[in-house]
Amino acid sequence: MFKTIKAIGTDAVANPLTTFRIKRRGLQDDDVEMDILYCGICYSDLHQLKNDFGAAHYPMVPGHEIVGRVIAVGRAVTQFQPGDYAAVGCIVDACGECPACRRDLEQFCESGTTLSFNSPDKHLGGMTYGGFAQTYVCREKYTLKMPAALDLASAAPLLCAGITVYSPLKHWQVGAGKVVGILGIGGLGHVAIKMAKAMGAHVVVFTTSEAKVADATRLGAHQAVLSTDPQQMKKFASKVDLILDTVSAKHDVNAYLNLLKIDGSVVLVGLPPEPIEIGAFNLVKGRRSFSGSNIGGIAETQEMLEFCAEHGITADIELISAIQVNDAFSRLEQGDVKYRFVLDMSTLQ
Amino acid sequence: MFKTIKAIGTDAVANPLTTFRIKRRGLQDDDVEMDILYCGICYSDLHQLKNDFGAAHYPMVPGHEIVGRVIAVGRAVTQFQPGDYAAVGCIVDACGECPACRRDLEQFCESGTTLSFNSPDKHLGGMTYGGFAQTYVCREKYTLKMPAALDLASAAPLLCAGITVYSPLKHWQVGAGKVVGILGIGGLGHVAIKMAKAMGAHVVVFTTSEAKVADATRLGAHQAVLSTDPQQMKKFASKVDLILDTVSAKHDVNAYLNLLKIDGSVVLVGLPPEPIEIGAFNLVKGRRSFSGSNIGGIAETQEMLEFCAEHGITADIELISAIQVNDAFSRLEQGDVKYRFVLDMSTLQ
Repeated sequence: MFKTIKAIGTDAVANPLTTFRIKRRGLQDDDVEMDILYCGICYSDLHQLKNDFGAAHYPMVPGHEIVGRVIAVGRAVTQFQPGDYAAVGCIVDACGECPACRRDLEQFCESGTTLSFNSPDKHLGGMTYGGFAQTYVCREKYTLKMPAALDLASAAPLLCAGITVYSPLKHWQVGAGKVVGILGIGGLGHVAIKMAKAMGAHVVVFTTSEAKVADATRLGAHQAVLSTDPQQMKKFASKVDLILDTVSAKHDVNAYLNLLKIDGSVVLVGLPPEPIEIGAFNLVKGRRSFSGSNIGGIAETQEMLEFCAEHGITADIELISAIQVNDAFSRLEQGDVKYRFVLDMSTLQ
Repeated sequence: MFKTIKAIGTDAVANPLTTFRIKRRGLQDDDVEMDILYCGICYSDLHQLKNDFGAAHYPMVPGHEIVGRVIAVGRAVTQFQPGDYAAVGCIVDACGECPACRRDLEQFCESGTTLSFNSPDKHLGGMTYGGFAQTYVCREKYTLKMPAALDLASAAPLLCAGITVYSPLKHWQVGAGKVVGILGIGGLGHVAIKMAKAMGAHVVVFTTSEAKVADATRLGAHQAVLSTDPQQMKKFASKVDLILDTVSAKHDVNAYLNLLKIDGSVVLVGLPPEPIEIGAFNLVKGRRSFSGSNIGGIAETQEMLEFCAEHGITADIELISAIQVNDAFSRLEQGDVKYRFVLDMSTLQ
C-alpha cells in the first residue's frame, strides 16, 4: 500500500534538484498524513545532497523542517484530526524502548533514529524521502502540533534550527543572570539569539562579519562582538557562562574557551568537517568544557514550539518557490541568506 | 627577616639538580613553619625544570607535595602548633576575595594563585621555592592538616596527584552505579583507581601497556582494557559515565569520547603539550563533553586527605634519598616509576 506523490530531489550527487515522483506509504493505524505547506532548507540538506558525510543515498529528497495540514489519520490516532496544522522535524521514528528513548532523547536512540530523509525506511524499504514533497506520512508519536500563534512559513525552521539551539540552551540552564554567547549568526544562530533573550539571559553575539554586528542587535542581542578584533574579544575573557557554537566552518574554538567563566561550556551544534584543535590549558583553566548537542527529542521539540508561540519567536526567512530551489542551495552554500530559506510547497506543481 | 636553609634545585634549564641555600621568609603572624619530612616528585616538577611551559625562572627549587612537622607558628595561628604533622600542596596563597576564592576554588583565583614554587613571592620578591628543602613557611589558611591515619611518606603525592584526580571525581559525581574509566596508570591514574573504587564506582582502566593490565586489577580496578585492542575497546562503546584522562602525552581522545554514555565527559587532568584534535560528531552524538580540571581548592584538598585516611588510600611510592634525585627525574621522564617518587628529606644533609 502506497501513494505516489510529487517531490523535489536529486538522482545523484552533484546533480541539480529536479521534480520526480516518489512513494509514500499507505496510512498505518498510528500514522498521520499531511499535505506539506512549507519546508525549511537547512545546511544539513546541502551536506547530504553533496554527500559531505559519506552516507548519502540517491535518489534523495531532502527537507526536514516540515509544516503541513493533516489530511488523514490512522484509526489509532487520537491527537490529530484532518484540518489540524502539524509538523515533522528530523526524527520520524525510534525504538521507543532504549534508555535514550525512555528519557525522551530519541535523537540518541540505541537502535538508530529514523530521520525524515536519507534514513532506512522500515515500511517501503529503501530510504526515507524528506519534506520537499506534496505530502508526508509520519507516526503520530513523532508528529508535532503547530501552536496557532505561530506563522506557519517562518516557524518551519524551528523544526531543526530551532530545536538544535533550544535544547542546549535549556540543558545548560540558560536564564536570567547568565551571560550567553552565540557564535555565528546564520540559520541556527539568529534563532538562538531570540530564544536566549526570551529565556532572560544577557546575549552576546560573536561574529566575524562587520555587516552582521548591527543585525545581531536588531535580532535582540544585548552586545555584538567582532571576533576578529582582539581588543573586543579580550573584554569578555572569563565573562561568559555558555557559548553556543553554531559555526560549521573551521574556526578557533580555543579563543572562545578562554571567554568562559569557571565551569563554562562551549557547546558545538555546527558540524565542522575537520577535527577541531583544543589546547589542554584552555580546558584545565577554569574547569571548562567543550561539548556537543544534537537536535532534541520529540517532547522537547513540542515544548520548544510552545515556547516560541508564547514569546513570538520564528525564523527570519526568505520564502521561495519550487523553481528557485537550486538557486537557493547555491546561495546557501555561499552564506547568502538572511537567515533561512523556506520552500512554499504550494508552488510544487 | 628571613632564614637561609638547604634546598635541592637547579640554576638553569637542563642543568642537573644540586644542593644550594635559599631564603625562607621569617614567620609572619599567620604563618606556619614546618620541617619538611617528605616531598613527592610530580611530572609537573619535571615540566618546570625543563621549562616545557615557557614560564620557568631559575634558580628553581621544585616540589609541591610537601609533608612536614610544624616547628613554629605565628601569633595569630590557631589551628596548628609545633609538633603537628602538616602539609602544603600546590597552592600557598590567593586573594581570598574573588568569586573563585569565595567558592573555595583558589586554583582559579582571579588575581592569580601563588604556587608553592616558581610563582612570584609576595614576601621576599623573586619566585617561590618549593618543597625540595629543609623547611617551608606557609600561611595557615593554605596549610593542610595531616590525618593521623595516613602514612606520611606515601601520603605526600596526595597533595598534588591526589587532589588532581579527587576533585573531578567529586565534581562529576562519581559514586555507586557509575562506570568510571581511568585513562593512564601513572602517578595520577593509580591514585584515581583507588579513589574511584572507594567512592563506589565500577572502575575500568584503559592502558596501552600490557604490563599494566595486571597492575590495574591489583590497584583495585574492576576491569582493565588494553586500549590498543579495538575489540576490547568496542565492548565499552557508550558504556562509560566519566573518563578521567591522566595522559600527558599525545593521544587520541576521540576513541574515548565514543565510550561515553549520553551526557558523559572525558575530563583531562594531564597536560599534553600539543593541541588535541576532536571530531565534532564525537561530541554531538550523545551530548558528550571534553572537559578539564585543575588540582582543587584548599578545603577540597583537606576533604580529600580525610577521605583517604578513612579509606586507607595513599600512593604507591618509591622512597628515595637526596642523592638519587637526578636519577629519579631521568626515570620519571621514561615513565619508569611505580608510581611516584617521594624524596625523604632527612637525607638532605
